[in-house]
Amino acid sequence: MQKRGAILVLSGPSGAGKSTIINAASEEIGDYYFSISTTTRNPRVGEKNGVDYFFVTKEDFEEDIKAGNFLEYAEVHGNYYGTSLKPVREALVEGKLVIFDIDVQGHRLVRAKMNDITTSAFITPPTLIELEKRLRARCTDDESVIINRIENAKSEIRAVGEYDFTIINDNIEDATRKFIIVAKAARLKQSREDEDKFITEWLA
Amino acid sequence: MQKRGAILVLSGPSGAGKSTIINAASEEIGDYYFSISTTTRNPRVGEKNGVDYFFVTKEDFEEDIKAGNFLEYAEVHGNYYGTSLKPVREALVEGKLVIFDIDVQGHRLVRAKMNDITTSAFITPPTLIELEKRLRARCTDDESVIINRIENAKSEIRAVGEYDFTIINDNIEDATRKFIIVAKAARLKQSREDEDKFITEWLA
Repeated sequence: MQKRGAILVLSGPSGAGKSTIINAASEEIGDYYFSISTTTRNPRVGEKNGVDYFFVTKEDFEEDIKAGNFLEYAEVHGNYYGTSLKPVREALVEGKLVIFDIDVQGHRLVRAKMNDITTSAFITPPTLIELEKRLRARCTDDESVIINRIENAKSEIRAVGEYDFTIINDNIEDATRKFIIVAKAARLKQSREDEDKFITEWLA
Repeated sequence: MQKRGAILVLSGPSGAGKSTIINAASEEIGDYYFSISTTTRNPRVGEKNGVDYFFVTKEDFEEDIKAGNFLEYAEVHGNYYGTSLKPVREALVEGKLVIFDIDVQGHRLVRAKMNDITTSAFITPPTLIELEKRLRARCTDDESVIINRIENAKSEIRAVGEYDFTIINDNIEDATRKFIIVAKAARLKQSREDEDKFITEWLA
């Protein structure tokens, strides 16, 4: 069967250890493209265009919405956040695993459009108390940001059942081992179109 | 999260190499229980009770149907075939991966009852022509049996899209490698009940 790329959606609270896990697994999971979101908010200190986000103007973003250029997008506190289709499509054609770090709502939108090639995992610390401890230990966020992240986490955890897998990051080695299994399985997903082609050729 | 067992359903034509793949993978995939079907048909030469099938009378089978003791069953050419719930439940409580080798219809019935903990893979030779070649090379089946297997395969291949994964057995090493990934991923599936419990405990 023709092998194009596939999608792996990761969600879970900030502080769950998603980036650490992806980095620890990167040698094992093969060629992947980590999707970079596009936003209209201003870059924070240290953030780089094309690394942390693609920073664009509101006008450009709205034009792209009209042109149907987003796989998913949302407006949060007056700023747009979205995933452009183009780099995702290119990575898929190259046979890469496309990894998204997006929220519960973004996961639903990706599922709605590309369900057949999508696998998803919710990554979370073992408890809310542990999440709070980790967020405070980082000392990088204001109290208001921490409170906001905790409130988001309390709401997002209820969506665990919508994900193919839950990875509880209690222990980084164990969480990474599970993530590698999920990423390798994600890569085996076939598009509906390729399956239909396979059936036709199989019977020929 | 509490870790009970999970289910892996394998379907695909006789001659696809399912048993060879499971045997080749058995050391890598950990503790599993290979589900043995129950049937009312007579044992063939060499078949052993409790190994190939559980052989029972029609009366016993029908009593078990009434008592709701089957996870799935079907009547084929006047004989019953089914999967008893009891050994499956026991293996799940022990945290084992329960592997089924059942047909497309059986897969649908397992999905209907235990969707949350079920992963499925359709295993097939690369083409219908290759399947026919393999069946004839075995020299174990009558012509009528071969024709019957081919007709079944032509009908079952159309259900490939209902399965989580398709494993094309073109090369046994490659097919085994893919099967190991699928089996390891299958083991990570959580029951809806355990997920709900996890959410409650997470928020506590």
